[in-house]
Amino acid sequence: MKKRLLLAGFALALGAGYTLSAFSQVKPEILVKQRQAAMTLQGKYFGPMGAMAQGKVPYNGDIVARNASYLEVLSKMPWDGFAESTKDVTVKTAALPAIWSEPAKFKEAQEKFQSAVGALVAATKTGNEASVKAAIAEVGKGGCGNCHQNFRQKD
Amino acid sequence: MKKRLLLAGFALALGAGYTLSAFSQVKPEILVKQRQAAMTLQGKYFGPMGAMAQGKVPYNGDIVARNASYLEVLSKMPWDGFAESTKDVTVKTAALPAIWSEPAKFKEAQEKFQSAVGALVAATKTGNEASVKAAIAEVGKGGCGNCHQNFRQKD
Repeated sequence: MKKRLLLAGFALALGAGYTLSAFSQVKPEILVKQRQAAMTLQGKYFGPMGAMAQGKVPYNGDIVARNASYLEVLSKMPWDGFAESTKDVTVKTAALPAIWSEPAKFKEAQEKFQSAVGALVAATKTGNEASVKAAIAEVGKGGCGNCHQNFRQKD
Repeated sequence: MKKRLLLAGFALALGAGYTLSAFSQVKPEILVKQRQAAMTLQGKYFGPMGAMAQGKVPYNGDIVARNASYLEVLSKMPWDGFAESTKDVTVKTAALPAIWSEPAKFKEAQEKFQSAVGALVAATKTGNEASVKAAIAEVGKGGCGNCHQNFRQKD
């Protein structure tokens, strides 16, 4: 009984009955929030690397290696949030209909991004600043940029 | 020149001049958004594990192993978002003043959470379902719950 109460306690701590949802029953609004959260964190860790690649802030190999490793994990997180159930969601989202009408192309864009991030992680292990900067630029252009170009509403 | 244009392109793709910020100059509102994003994703990956530990959904060792490994990385992400600069931010946040008035205790709560997640990751490698479930409960209670109890406004 004590255990049950403690477990109930931590379920509450997560708020909004989240743990009551089965996997397939996560509300569309929550899926949107989660995928946007993944994008926000990708921005958090990519941003400083982009600034370094552009020479706007001093290059720091340790930060790049850490951020690249975080980005590798984050690059796996947004995609299940683009479930069909979120197509007509009423919360604010910049997701374009092409995500659902061109699923193969969307999947390809995800893989291109993940592969660019993988190449960046590999580059950080060589410690060659020029290669790392080129790999950062490719994540930005071939990864983020390419996908946003086709699947995200312009600001 | 072409390279510069491409780099400018990916900076834009990130939106809102994010890459123009130096590390220490990230706006408080952005820091809040980023730390909340990390919490949202912790919830995304902890939620199903909590439900499994409570027997609400069938246990799936592969999902637990994956989610625990994601959670390990996510458990490092929120804390720099609780910068002093965010103390009096006007955007909605459940962060309590104790975060800044009791920094040692807040740090301890972070470490307790990270250590519980580390123990969960270790448990997933043994494949012992009962140990894994106990480790999940400890992440929820000793990690999430403990920190929310003291540093997060009740819903």
